[in-house]
Amino acid sequence: MDDKDLVWTEESSRLVFETRVFSVRESRCRSPAGKSGLYVTLDAPDWAVVVPVLETEGGRRFVMVRQWRHGSRELSLEFPGGVFEQNEDGKAAAARELYEETAYRPGRVRELGVMSPNPAIMANRVHFFLAEDLHWTGSQHLDEDEYVAVEQVTVEEAVRGMGRPPYTHALMAAALMLYQKNT
Amino acid sequence: MDDKDLVWTEESSRLVFETRVFSVRESRCRSPAGKSGLYVTLDAPDWAVVVPVLETEGGRRFVMVRQWRHGSRELSLEFPGGVFEQNEDGKAAAARELYEETAYRPGRVRELGVMSPNPAIMANRVHFFLAEDLHWTGSQHLDEDEYVAVEQVTVEEAVRGMGRPPYTHALMAAALMLYQKNT
Repeated sequence: MDDKDLVWTEESSRLVFETRVFSVRESRCRSPAGKSGLYVTLDAPDWAVVVPVLETEGGRRFVMVRQWRHGSRELSLEFPGGVFEQNEDGKAAAARELYEETAYRPGRVRELGVMSPNPAIMANRVHFFLAEDLHWTGSQHLDEDEYVAVEQVTVEEAVRGMGRPPYTHALMAAALMLYQKNT
Repeated sequence: MDDKDLVWTEESSRLVFETRVFSVRESRCRSPAGKSGLYVTLDAPDWAVVVPVLETEGGRRFVMVRQWRHGSRELSLEFPGGVFEQNEDGKAAAARELYEETAYRPGRVRELGVMSPNPAIMANRVHFFLAEDLHWTGSQHLDEDEYVAVEQVTVEEAVRGMGRPPYTHALMAAALMLYQKNT
């Protein structure tokens, strides 16, 4: 099948609802067969997920954060990350979020991939990074409503746990997959 | 840090916007320190992602689908999947979506994990499955507005490609991670 038999065209688009975190957009799109329909999608800022690796006497460990998630209404153990600030590039966002959430500053940050968190409905991208050569600065710099516990987890433990609580954030499994293929 | 220093409490919650695909909810939540604030999250149905494995003379291959995604506004090469129908269990949804999108019926379906697609904002779950012993039935059964090209991809090709177009759906990288740790 040719790509032209799969590609849709956007005919028009408008914002229908806005929140602090995302906006809802309704677009009229034309199918490959020429039929028109309405589709809702979400605009939101791009964000960084950073896989921070510590070389310890006990082997490689990830620096992870345990925090409450308002969507799933549960605690989740994750790689650090957060949305890009205006005009901030991905590597800078990754290094900043790592520092703010965990107090580690990275000596090296490398991109592992840029993906769509959920291309069916989300228009933004999630940028995955590897952070190495970590230096402990002593204190987190959390937002006013952030409550984040920092934990060190062996690579084996994260791999084994992924898919079960507290490793329930699917985009962290994606980060781990990109880490495994790039190291 | 104790879990009680991380857990939030939902004080009240209301639907503020509804679409065909998801609803937007605004909840008043109390932080571990007792401070109250408003948070927006999305309700949407659970869905299945199914990793279909074919044993071929050229080795193991995944059955994948190439389709347009309205959120990312691009073509994406993915594992099949879709939302649960009412009262349908995950395995049944996985087998049905596999059949409808690719015309393959699975002899065996096994759960690989249940995760949150994006726990920061989404309340639903994505259920990952492995499908084996596939039987070709001859024709897809697509929804009226579905345009899906079926492709066979070697495991190596999917691993190598993940994180770059057309392998840009991050939840497929999560599926591949769960596949790799379970096979």
